Amino acid sequence: MKKIIGIDLGGTSVKLAIVSQEGEVLEKWSIKTNSLENGKHIVPDIIQSITEHLDLYQLTADDFVGIGMGSPGKVDAVHKTVIGAYNLGWSNLQEVGKAFDEAFGLPFYIGNDANVAALGEQWKGAGKGNSDVVMFTLGTGVGGGIVTNGQLVTGEGGAAGEIGHLTVDTDYLTPCTCGKKGCLEAVASATGIVNLAHHFSSEYEGDSPIKASIDNGDEVTSKEIFDAAKEGDVFANMVVDKFVSYLGLAVSHIANTLSPSHIVIGGGVSAAGEFLREKIATKAYDYIFPQIRETCHIVLAELGNDAGIIGAAQLVNLG
Amino acid sequence: MKKIIGIDLGGTSVKLAIVSQEGEVLEKWSIKTNSLENGKHIVPDIIQSITEHLDLYQLTADDFVGIGMGSPGKVDAVHKTVIGAYNLGWSNLQEVGKAFDEAFGLPFYIGNDANVAALGEQWKGAGKGNSDVVMFTLGTGVGGGIVTNGQLVTGEGGAAGEIGHLTVDTDYLTPCTCGKKGCLEAVASATGIVNLAHHFSSEYEGDSPIKASIDNGDEVTSKEIFDAAKEGDVFANMVVDKFVSYLGLAVSHIANTLSPSHIVIGGGVSAAGEFLREKIATKAYDYIFPQIRETCHIVLAELGNDAGIIGAAQLVNLG
Repeated sequence: MKKIIGIDLGGTSVKLAIVSQEGEVLEKWSIKTNSLENGKHIVPDIIQSITEHLDLYQLTADDFVGIGMGSPGKVDAVHKTVIGAYNLGWSNLQEVGKAFDEAFGLPFYIGNDANVAALGEQWKGAGKGNSDVVMFTLGTGVGGGIVTNGQLVTGEGGAAGEIGHLTVDTDYLTPCTCGKKGCLEAVASATGIVNLAHHFSSEYEGDSPIKASIDNGDEVTSKEIFDAAKEGDVFANMVVDKFVSYLGLAVSHIANTLSPSHIVIGGGVSAAGEFLREKIATKAYDYIFPQIRETCHIVLAELGNDAGIIGAAQLVNLG
Repeated sequence: MKKIIGIDLGGTSVKLAIVSQEGEVLEKWSIKTNSLENGKHIVPDIIQSITEHLDLYQLTADDFVGIGMGSPGKVDAVHKTVIGAYNLGWSNLQEVGKAFDEAFGLPFYIGNDANVAALGEQWKGAGKGNSDVVMFTLGTGVGGGIVTNGQLVTGEGGAAGEIGHLTVDTDYLTPCTCGKKGCLEAVASATGIVNLAHHFSSEYEGDSPIKASIDNGDEVTSKEIFDAAKEGDVFANMVVDKFVSYLGLAVSHIANTLSPSHIVIGGGVSAAGEFLREKIATKAYDYIFPQIRETCHIVLAELGNDAGIIGAAQLVNLG
């Protein structure tokens, strides 16, 4: 049975894998992302690494049905180009597909990284075997990916899944990097929760090591806030509750709109685990239409860092 | 070329049509909906009417590729059943598909009425020829339908498109008939705008015939509020602006999530026309991710009452 090459291109590293058509990761490795010189080495580095690994495993292009790739930035799945992936140095249009065509002559598919991770979780992870699955990726920002009828939703201009820019904060209207105000990303990402902690530290009068750190001008991380909340810090819990109220509202919007069987919470912030998931689900269910509440499961991601390479392989299967 | 029978089942009347496979309405007629005796006459009445019209046009089942139908209530598209369509008297499960199979032996497809209307607008109306289109139906309630990748999104349990139950009102938490609070339907339907008018009438101190009617205990309609707003009534404009702020927020949620090419505003309330559309679009654009703002058109529905029969026909084409 022929195999698939899955690529997950990130700002720090590129994850690569040989994946079976059923989604089993057979081999995986990674290389560093060299974003110097406007990222012009990235695609040649990936192609070279694949070529070397095919040699190593005594495989040729004939052993593969195709190559799939997830990339940051604005991805054009039809023309197989990427633009505006600033963490890669790719501010200008990159003809990614063309380079892969020339190197391997295999069918090549590309999608936005958050979308592709959602596809991985829908295919083989927390939403396994279900046709309607949405993923929230809570990291430095908030990304998203939507699968309906078993297909990735890319929408007009490939911009679907901008869950991080749902307007949820109509109280403080926290500014977002996108230019809007009150976006989910501005209040419910790793940086968002720190924004909230700073906001509330001036209002809170009790004792709290987290509040003390903030008042001291020390840097506080999302992990420290969640750890303190788990240990019962009242201030940290106040911050987490606000964080969760925004996230619960956004999750409910997705549930009411798409009625997915699973809403998957992933990304670095989801390391807070069941403590976080349970709070999000409780809040979201208050806002979800009764009939949908019965069928929509709010779950933690299961594939971790492999979601991208597995989702990239599924891009090839979906064609 | 074979044709399609499209059926739009409503609480007052059933609209029926013979539609070409390209979506042209060749013949249309309607019958009254008889919801007496738990609506047990409805399906037999429709079948009899179709039989009579086929005779009239000298057609037989062989001239058709299939029958499509939009229905209120909870529709199971797989088992072709409907439950909980209370305005039809259908509180119990109705084996609609089985009755049509026995009568005509043709492929039969059924969907939720708001979803099917959206499919009509996507196929032949305001979103014509585009694969990603969402419709808001603003009537007594707020319905919705979502098309992504050219396919209707039904989600788990067939409940996708419950746009009317997006939580948008976090200020007053107006109770909704669904049991939740702050739903779009509770503030941005024909009844919702009247709710808002009642709410604001106690706060507003200026002169306004609309406010006077409310204070008098007279019944005020959504049309009267929109007409007064168009004529410059300050109170009516205050109500319309609040109505639009909720609707704009909900429209932005759809845009940021799905990046559709078109968000179509239909239903009875949309008779307020360009006056309403322009206000909704202006508000929504404030909340829409900049890149999506460029590609997402907020437009009025074009098919009117024909959206249902045309969308029902497209259900057959999609198979």
